[in-house]
Amino acid sequence: MPRLSRRARLNAWLAHPARVVVTGFAVAVAVSTALLMLPAAAEDGTRTGFVDALFTATSAVCVTGLTAVDTPTHWSAFGELVILGSIQVGGLGTMSLATLIALAVARRISLRMRLVAQAETKHAGPSDLRRMLTAIAGTALAVEAATATVLAARFAAGYDVAPGRAVYLGVFHAVSAFNNAGFALFSDNLMGFVADPWICLPIAAAVIIGGIGFPVLLEVRRVLGGTRAWSTHARITLGGTAVLIAGGTLLVTALEWSNPGTLGPLPGPAKLLAGFFHGVMPRTAGFNSLDMAAMQPDTLMVTNILMFVGGGSAGTAGGVKITTAAILLLGVWNEIRGHRDVTIARRRIPEAVYRQALAVVALGLSLVSCAVIVLLSVTPYALSQVLFEAVSAFGTVGLSTGITYDLPPVAELVLTLLMFTGRLGPLTLGAALALRMRTRRYDLPEERPIIG
Amino acid sequence: MPRLSRRARLNAWLAHPARVVVTGFAVAVAVSTALLMLPAAAEDGTRTGFVDALFTATSAVCVTGLTAVDTPTHWSAFGELVILGSIQVGGLGTMSLATLIALAVARRISLRMRLVAQAETKHAGPSDLRRMLTAIAGTALAVEAATATVLAARFAAGYDVAPGRAVYLGVFHAVSAFNNAGFALFSDNLMGFVADPWICLPIAAAVIIGGIGFPVLLEVRRVLGGTRAWSTHARITLGGTAVLIAGGTLLVTALEWSNPGTLGPLPGPAKLLAGFFHGVMPRTAGFNSLDMAAMQPDTLMVTNILMFVGGGSAGTAGGVKITTAAILLLGVWNEIRGHRDVTIARRRIPEAVYRQALAVVALGLSLVSCAVIVLLSVTPYALSQVLFEAVSAFGTVGLSTGITYDLPPVAELVLTLLMFTGRLGPLTLGAALALRMRTRRYDLPEERPIIG
Ligand SMILES: [K+]
Ligand SMILES: [K+]
Repeated sequence: MPRLSRRARLNAWLAHPARVVVTGFAVAVAVSTALLMLPAAAEDGTRTGFVDALFTATSAVCVTGLTAVDTPTHWSAFGELVILGSIQVGGLGTMSLATLIALAVARRISLRMRLVAQAETKHAGPSDLRRMLTAIAGTALAVEAATATVLAARFAAGYDVAPGRAVYLGVFHAVSAFNNAGFALFSDNLMGFVADPWICLPIAAAVIIGGIGFPVLLEVRRVLGGTRAWSTHARITLGGTAVLIAGGTLLVTALEWSNPGTLGPLPGPAKLLAGFFHGVMPRTAGFNSLDMAAMQPDTLMVTNILMFVGGGSAGTAGGVKITTAAILLLGVWNEIRGHRDVTIARRRIPEAVYRQALAVVALGLSLVSCAVIVLLSVTPYALSQVLFEAVSAFGTVGLSTGITYDLPPVAELVLTLLMFTGRLGPLTLGAALALRMRTRRYDLPEERPIIG
Repeated sequence: MPRLSRRARLNAWLAHPARVVVTGFAVAVAVSTALLMLPAAAEDGTRTGFVDALFTATSAVCVTGLTAVDTPTHWSAFGELVILGSIQVGGLGTMSLATLIALAVARRISLRMRLVAQAETKHAGPSDLRRMLTAIAGTALAVEAATATVLAARFAAGYDVAPGRAVYLGVFHAVSAFNNAGFALFSDNLMGFVADPWICLPIAAAVIIGGIGFPVLLEVRRVLGGTRAWSTHARITLGGTAVLIAGGTLLVTALEWSNPGTLGPLPGPAKLLAGFFHGVMPRTAGFNSLDMAAMQPDTLMVTNILMFVGGGSAGTAGGVKITTAAILLLGVWNEIRGHRDVTIARRRIPEAVYRQALAVVALGLSLVSCAVIVLLSVTPYALSQVLFEAVSAFGTVGLSTGITYDLPPVAELVLTLLMFTGRLGPLTLGAALALRMRTRRYDLPEERPIIG
């Protein structure tokens, strides 16, 4: 019975999502590294070193956008296509695997299933899976095509770029935007387009849509179609996205308003456009239209917080995710107010979910702290630069104060590791925690140490 | 019945520990500020400004040791005595109130009581309270007297200080050490004694004993006397202290070994002594025998972590406390391993205590982050300096990279607030959380958002 055996294979797969995810990404990084090391991948036709190739491949597959070499001048057209392919594979891979895991979690813990397939069948089978993957790829391609069209038209009409090149630029930046990758084909990223809403707004839109995550995108369509009500997950994600975009825009615009290195010289509307762009990009696209190295230190700290939080679950965004941060924040707030439960929008969040959120954030803070201490030891850079770089790598953001090009190999490797764990850590850790069958052991006697 | 009415008064007191603690400390800071503003308190006989006096008073009462003016040259002998008195009041006050709260928590939640009085009587009454406060004051004075004796002898014998002055120096630094205050009567703190074990070791011993906390000190005496077994609280505190001292010493010594501004020029044994001293002092005494401004940035980050964690509960140490950090760490670790409960040394930690620990740490991180963003806006200093100063203030440590003297008033006020909330926040928050009667309301429907 091939049908059953395929379902059995799917189930075996779903039983060890962490293994699948880590293996899949490691293979993608290895292939991408090998391709980037080919002489044909470099503009000057020489072989790129292993560490730089590994760094770029990891950055692309993990849709981070940190670059150890200058993308447009170092890589050939073939190299750029490898990067583009890696971004697409990494972004779609994350969305698919994360959605798959959400499916597995929903199945294992016997909740009413919320994703594509479950409304129709009691158990998701291979055909539901195929339908879901098709829906994800379709969504991605549709948003990327729309974005690419606007961008290509603007590049051709506004910047006198030849049509073929304009389409190439449009496709590359659309894919990079939807996948929240932040790679650009300009040496100054998007700083040349700081005042151009026809470039900045489509990119910001693709970034936001890609970063919201597939389950919520799907839900938006279904809620608008009247076939279901909002889930708590969607409420948190959409509400959190709105709050973070508004807060980020407000703070960046206010703090940078008269900085001569960033917003200062711009006219009023461009100030708002760039402030909005830099309120959106830290979570977690990583494009920049302003010079990050010239930003105020307090803006960098605000950006650090945005980068650490990141975007929606099961999308192309990184960070610990909006739901994780929101549940932790609300849990602590409820705790301080003396409420026993974590409640959001009149729904109770299970204790186990609260503790998962804590584990994910604690893992992130520990990783970043350790990386910062190592980076401080092996580089001559200041804490503000090193912390920014580490948070950017962990959150797979890709913004940088400009130190990435000059790092020693060991620092590059630390950041590579941070990008990889930052991309997969919260995902697989969250999945492993949610999927694990908890063994209720005999209860130990209880004791109550003093806190604080 | 005066007996009953006193007990009723005590109970009313214990019902609102946060109010008592905050009011008590605010009054102490106000009195100390007023005294320090008297012309007689300053060496030059002029009135000290409000912000500097408030900063110094808060720093002394909250046993922090950050100084906005140079202690030996700015303050007169009377001013120094005000500081000394403020330290003693603040240190004893913290120990007493925290122990009192621990007592109240133990009573309210009907656990077997663990402190002085409860072994004898079923409910702690005013006489038990008096006995407990006497024990605390007795412990403090005994340790301070022993430390002062050694220090005075060394100042007189080793540094040709006149006997009266030697006793004064001995007492001041002994009180400052036991109370984990970190105020010194030398403009370079204790840098002149970096290689002198007769000064450094007694001070380190007083710091460690004061920082362990009264409940554990009491338990040590009782366990050694054979009348009881170790509680989980004492196990965590003692084990954690040992781990943090060993780890801090090792890291500081290794990272600073060849730094020409700190350990570099010292001979081998002095390197170890200074490394040990700077492994102990961040939690949370704040004396320094090395130049903090010359320290490596990675050492400063390690020191930040030590300062944030702090010492034992219900002692003179600050920070979020060892038990808080340990429970959170073990909880996350158990969560990652898939154990449902937080267990330490074959005891289960109640879920509520785990969540209290999280609330205290989250409060601390949020306060420090907000303060850092404000300090970056209003001062010209680097993130490494500003972060160090903020963590030092929150942890009531008092170490500084040297920026405290030159801060604008608004920055001084931010640090003042941070010292006050850092001293009282974890204590009162922990108490309020532990004491609160949780109202179990009707259960809301449960939902399970995606984490990570
Ligand atoms: K990115
Ligand atoms: K201190």
